[in-house]
Amino acid sequence: MGEVRTILLHENVLDDIKKEGDKLRADLKRQSIYLVNVMSSPGSGKTTTLISLIERMKKDYTIGVMEADIDSDVDAVRVAERTGVKSIQLHTGGMCHLDADMTRQGLAGLDSNDANLIFLENVGNLVCPAEFDTGACLNVCILSVPEGSDKPLKYPLMFEVCDLVLINKIDTLEYFDFNFRKVEEFIHRRNPDAIILPISAKTGEGMDKAVDYFNQKIKEWRK
Amino acid sequence: MGEVRTILLHENVLDDIKKEGDKLRADLKRQSIYLVNVMSSPGSGKTTTLISLIERMKKDYTIGVMEADIDSDVDAVRVAERTGVKSIQLHTGGMCHLDADMTRQGLAGLDSNDANLIFLENVGNLVCPAEFDTGACLNVCILSVPEGSDKPLKYPLMFEVCDLVLINKIDTLEYFDFNFRKVEEFIHRRNPDAIILPISAKTGEGMDKAVDYFNQKIKEWRK
Repeated sequence: MGEVRTILLHENVLDDIKKEGDKLRADLKRQSIYLVNVMSSPGSGKTTTLISLIERMKKDYTIGVMEADIDSDVDAVRVAERTGVKSIQLHTGGMCHLDADMTRQGLAGLDSNDANLIFLENVGNLVCPAEFDTGACLNVCILSVPEGSDKPLKYPLMFEVCDLVLINKIDTLEYFDFNFRKVEEFIHRRNPDAIILPISAKTGEGMDKAVDYFNQKIKEWRK
Repeated sequence: MGEVRTILLHENVLDDIKKEGDKLRADLKRQSIYLVNVMSSPGSGKTTTLISLIERMKKDYTIGVMEADIDSDVDAVRVAERTGVKSIQLHTGGMCHLDADMTRQGLAGLDSNDANLIFLENVGNLVCPAEFDTGACLNVCILSVPEGSDKPLKYPLMFEVCDLVLINKIDTLEYFDFNFRKVEEFIHRRNPDAIILPISAKTGEGMDKAVDYFNQKIKEWRK
């Protein structure tokens, strides 16, 4: 099992959130670390998706994981147990989001000098995390089938700031009223450049395509 | 179809959120209006549950509905179309929660002098809404089976402030790893008084018991 520690983050009142994000991205670039920010509602399968991605990617990258939550360390323990990668639990002290400074505290806590791919699992929330630049190189949103296809209408900012939207739990499509074409239309109305991929982190469906996407983005970043 | 209007709420910086909540509750008591605050993640079925409750309760009460969202009016339109009750869409202007003053603005906008039961559907979010007293007489949280049974560990405050937790989409139990006994244990660890009821707003399972609970609470409130 990978190591698991928990740290409590402190919010810093920053004058320029975007500037701090750009600064962190520049630092990461210098260290050749690719940081992926994963956002979603509670229960859409962030942790299961991360485990599924890591299993497929750990032969090619040295991976670290930061699990942000209000409380508990169940996610960090689960990731470490299942994948063996270095994982840290970040407690936000009640905060509903992460910013670049909090992410920097997390990276220091992770203390993984050799990691070249780090996943940040943000607090489960479709509102607040979208308002803050974490300094990540890529923003991913997971929307799961049981949540319904109208979510991009109700939480527009989240779908605007995302590079990639993973539609998870696609194996449960027949049990729910979820319209894939509609969700694509709603997302692209707000964000024409968003890439949308259907996956099931549980059955593995669509995961190889998701990995291809990450590999391509990391390749571009390293150029 | 019931009437649908949309209003944009303005946040008021209040010195004492709890005091404003108590003041609103006292005003509601004088007007014999029972206000229910419904909270959950995005996509756990708040609107479907409200429709299912209203269908069963509208013969006994004059009902009004306030649908809070960052954007869109799909929920207010859906409730009005399906139930015929007076419904208003509240736009929070990007805010992730409602407080008592925003709720008061919503009630003024609903403009329903004869309503004696009003449901407030809060913004879909398990973090921020729990931090603010809306002035409601009853706090309800909906947790749906696809979200997983570990949610009370990760979002403890939400489950602490709730009088009632409805476990929705119970008809999908066999497709997901959801442990009902565990979720009861996790919720009662934080909030021993919470009432937990399994429902399926879609199939109607458990809805009569939920209605009985509301009837009982409203009877106690009116004493």
